Amino acid sequence: MISETQIIVRYAETDQMGIAHHSMYAVWYEAARTEFIRKLGMRYSDVEKAGILLPLTELTSRYIRAAFYEDVLSITVRIQKLTVSRISFAYTVRRQGETEILNEGTTTHGFVNTSFRPVNLKKYAPDIYALMMRGLEE
Amino acid sequence: MISETQIIVRYAETDQMGIAHHSMYAVWYEAARTEFIRKLGMRYSDVEKAGILLPLTELTSRYIRAAFYEDVLSITVRIQKLTVSRISFAYTVRRQGETEILNEGTTTHGFVNTSFRPVNLKKYAPDIYALMMRGLEE
Amino acid sequence: MISETQIIVRYAETDQMGIAHHSMYAVWYEAARTEFIRKLGMRYSDVEKAGILLPLTELTSRYIRAAFYEDVLSITVRIQKLTVSRISFAYTVRRQGETEILNEGTTTHGFVNTSFRPVNLKKYAPDIYALMMRGLEE
Amino acid sequence: MISETQIIVRYAETDQMGIAHHSMYAVWYEAARTEFIRKLGMRYSDVEKAGILLPLTELTSRYIRAAFYEDVLSITVRIQKLTVSRISFAYTVRRQGETEILNEGTTTHGFVNTSFRPVNLKKYAPDIYALMMRGLEE
Repeated sequence: MISETQIIVRYAETDQMGIAHHSMYAVWYEAARTEFIRKLGMRYSDVEKAGILLPLTELTSRYIRAAFYEDVLSITVRIQKLTVSRISFAYTVRRQGETEILNEGTTTHGFVNTSFRPVNLKKYAPDIYALMMRGLEE
Repeated sequence: MISETQIIVRYAETDQMGIAHHSMYAVWYEAARTEFIRKLGMRYSDVEKAGILLPLTELTSRYIRAAFYEDVLSITVRIQKLTVSRISFAYTVRRQGETEILNEGTTTHGFVNTSFRPVNLKKYAPDIYALMMRGLEE
Repeated sequence: MISETQIIVRYAETDQMGIAHHSMYAVWYEAARTEFIRKLGMRYSDVEKAGILLPLTELTSRYIRAAFYEDVLSITVRIQKLTVSRISFAYTVRRQGETEILNEGTTTHGFVNTSFRPVNLKKYAPDIYALMMRGLEE
Repeated sequence: MISETQIIVRYAETDQMGIAHHSMYAVWYEAARTEFIRKLGMRYSDVEKAGILLPLTELTSRYIRAAFYEDVLSITVRIQKLTVSRISFAYTVRRQGETEILNEGTTTHGFVNTSFRPVNLKKYAPDIYALMMRGLEE
């Protein structure tokens, strides 16, 4: 599955260079990830209520062109890799209606319980694992 | 007690006007409040571990002059008012070593438990109440 | 005119209390203000290109009930007061489709040029002043 | 040269998982980078005043262990690579006084002018290039 999320660049997200600050992309990826999971048929809040957290283990981001205040951005997200202990997402940021890529990135997350101990998602929460698998395959 | 905290304005905290974004002052007040409580002899983390949260009920902020990237700011904080259910802090932001005030503000917080129900701090946690009283009086 | 903006609470906007951090409301007010001005028929980016900045001189915010991750919020905004040198906006935050108010606030802004000197908006940019007047009256 | 910057984790920087949000590391790297450049003998503000901007072209971050509210962190930064068109920095985040690494990352920046056009730093601003070279070598 590929999900698309629309973001309007906020004034607070700009910096004195006059562009969207680079740290915001991680926040936008996350908003896109939230919507991806919702489209899969589950709220990420419910994943957490099931006792599973997905803290990041890795983030990469390539900044190709700047985004500006009031730009309407389109963030696409898909699952890049899924194992029983880890999931990776890939993101692409464009201005809405344009093909040029402004930014590309990836995030990797470990599956942990609320004590931050790694869990085997397939055993711990087979339903959520099945859902993620579906998100990978479709 | 009056406590003083030093903050260096971060690049990410600026906006495209070239000044520190107005939403950051609430964050700086909070950092100053954290240090105030630490100087009183308690970590705010420990207040939370004791089951007491201090969510804001009110914020006011007056922006007199702008702060800029790399400015070294001095935030002073003191308790303005304390009851068994509520506490207010007052803040003043200056450039370090200068007398001119850049910003002034206040925050008011209710005492609640982890279910966000109001508590009477004097009954619920007399030690913390006594500490706050000392912070008000000294 | 009253404008309404939808915001979905981001994970990054929560804090360890499990609620949307209080500093985010100023950012959401701003996003709502941006949309208000766009609905009036002008992009705020164009206001800035015309050499006029609207830095805050005052912010107030009353936190009545918490907002949570993934909440769909509705921010309404209207002009509260307009003079040739200053403008105030009033904001109300609710969960979408609900009547209960989570948060209320105001921001006041001075009209300044790019050197941060106060300007008389009616003289300096009569078109923008007329637009704001219309936003106040409608 | 290796520079070390101290950061205290702010409440606003935590998320509902109870840890410092992953997007903050990019902001902390930047604060550490600012101090690195200051220790080299120049303010980054002055680099910008000389008409040179260093927007990011790439960011990587590895999250090994979580950081928590009120943690006193030590961020070390050094130049990893320098050419006439690009500079890379490497960062390590630890709790102050501890050897365990919480996070590691890199940022790469292009040298551009205020129109965001790439410049040859050695030709455009030989003094700044020489300073950076010194930072690489020492």
